[in-house]
Amino acid sequence: MRNVTEDTLTKAVLDTISDDADPRFREIMTGLIKHLHEFAIETNLSKEEWLGAIEFLYQTGKKTTRNRNEFILLSDTLGLSSMVDMISSRGDDDATAVSVLGPFYIEGAPFIKNGGDLIKNNAGQPTLVKGCVTSTTGEPISNALLDVWQNAENGKYSNEDPDQDDDNLRARLNADDDGSYSFTTIRPSPYTVPEDGPAGVMLEAMGRHPWRPAHIHFKVSAEGYQDLITEIYPEDDEYIDADAVFGVRDSLAVEFKATTSEAEATRYGLKSPFLTVEYDFRLRPL
Amino acid sequence: MRNVTEDTLTKAVLDTISDDADPRFREIMTGLIKHLHEFAIETNLSKEEWLGAIEFLYQTGKKTTRNRNEFILLSDTLGLSSMVDMISSRGDDDATAVSVLGPFYIEGAPFIKNGGDLIKNNAGQPTLVKGCVTSTTGEPISNALLDVWQNAENGKYSNEDPDQDDDNLRARLNADDDGSYSFTTIRPSPYTVPEDGPAGVMLEAMGRHPWRPAHIHFKVSAEGYQDLITEIYPEDDEYIDADAVFGVRDSLAVEFKATTSEAEATRYGLKSPFLTVEYDFRLRPL
Repeated sequence: MRNVTEDTLTKAVLDTISDDADPRFREIMTGLIKHLHEFAIETNLSKEEWLGAIEFLYQTGKKTTRNRNEFILLSDTLGLSSMVDMISSRGDDDATAVSVLGPFYIEGAPFIKNGGDLIKNNAGQPTLVKGCVTSTTGEPISNALLDVWQNAENGKYSNEDPDQDDDNLRARLNADDDGSYSFTTIRPSPYTVPEDGPAGVMLEAMGRHPWRPAHIHFKVSAEGYQDLITEIYPEDDEYIDADAVFGVRDSLAVEFKATTSEAEATRYGLKSPFLTVEYDFRLRPL
Repeated sequence: MRNVTEDTLTKAVLDTISDDADPRFREIMTGLIKHLHEFAIETNLSKEEWLGAIEFLYQTGKKTTRNRNEFILLSDTLGLSSMVDMISSRGDDDATAVSVLGPFYIEGAPFIKNGGDLIKNNAGQPTLVKGCVTSTTGEPISNALLDVWQNAENGKYSNEDPDQDDDNLRARLNADDDGSYSFTTIRPSPYTVPEDGPAGVMLEAMGRHPWRPAHIHFKVSAEGYQDLITEIYPEDDEYIDADAVFGVRDSLAVEFKATTSEAEATRYGLKSPFLTVEYDFRLRPL
């Protein structure tokens, strides 16, 4: 190994992986080492640039806590998270597209009844969300669990805003036997990803904006089906085609439609007019 | 951008980089994004594996301090640091090969006179190191500054061993007008890179050992020349062809030769027999 050169170094590193290593770990590390080395060679990475990258990672580590993961934010803003989502959904065209989980999910949101309300004291445009949970072949799934979370009119999630209750705009509900679900909420707001850390520095240096289009997060689960993690976006959002984390898919951009149905207004305790979103979730079997 | 697919995502991310971004930063980020995405595609990276990588980076950030940089250790053990060294030395065949700086350098080591001693109270095999500092065309360089550091017989550097003085086995000295330098020290010991963090977990999973062959670090500087950072290694070291950080080069593996010269023993205050290393440093002009 002592006569290693730029041309033979990659193989020398790969050769150190033991034959006894887990085959999948070997596959991943082989890909990682090859791409790291090719990246350095193709960009003629200098020692000073390497040191700059090391300092950037140092700062990223310092900024990261269990509640604020700057590594995830880098993965999101570089499109890696969406790439992993797309890879895991290959050949899955009949299922609802997945989208990024994001950093604001909290397990254990309070249960509300199907048809229940998330608006409570929130300002914002009242919105009825309704639809059906089905299999990829369109058959209704009974009693699917929907875990829902979104931000408030000021653009903030409850876990980044001391003025909101911890559970604000978060709930779990069970769909009916026929797969139908509904709840009332407010229209979510576009917002910026956190800019006060290394990811913000990177976006600034790339000349990129930090905005995400508004969205409602869903985690939909049912026995015999794969968990679906996704987001739906108002199709008329200003940032619908410029999401800083590349989470939007055509099929996830939906109309928040002005509605004047007095029957529904009465049924859901809303004042007319309000917005209605209709969205069906199609789950992939296990 | 909302109709992005696995095939178009990489371009969509690259298209967000502003035309006003610094051209070199654009070049580096373009390479990084392409290789990150290709790595995920080629390995069919799953969401669980991505989450595992995020947790690994979280732990790496937590382990890293200003005195113990786990990101550098990952770069070293994956061969990236050596790759960057090699890239920066391209076309530089007449200069002494560079090698990794490592994490144990401390600025401001005490000055000793040329021909001075580092052994003091250290156990170990006494070793005379001598040679000449020249240009790449072999002309002696006057008064070059040599910054030297190495570990003790127990394998530890002074800054990781409370039983050693802070300055133990560290010194700066100036070569003579004719480029010649010499000092006495002990033969350094092979040692393991730190194994108590994520890099250790990674090496273990790859079935790799954490050993580095023994070496003496040098930083050699002279007016009008590029700083040279390198290491020299005893060619008979057990790990000379299995360095965990890929720092060895053929031209840096040297003989620690048993010597019985009474004249030199007297001159340097050594007991015969001792070891002698002869090594000339060839610096690249600025």
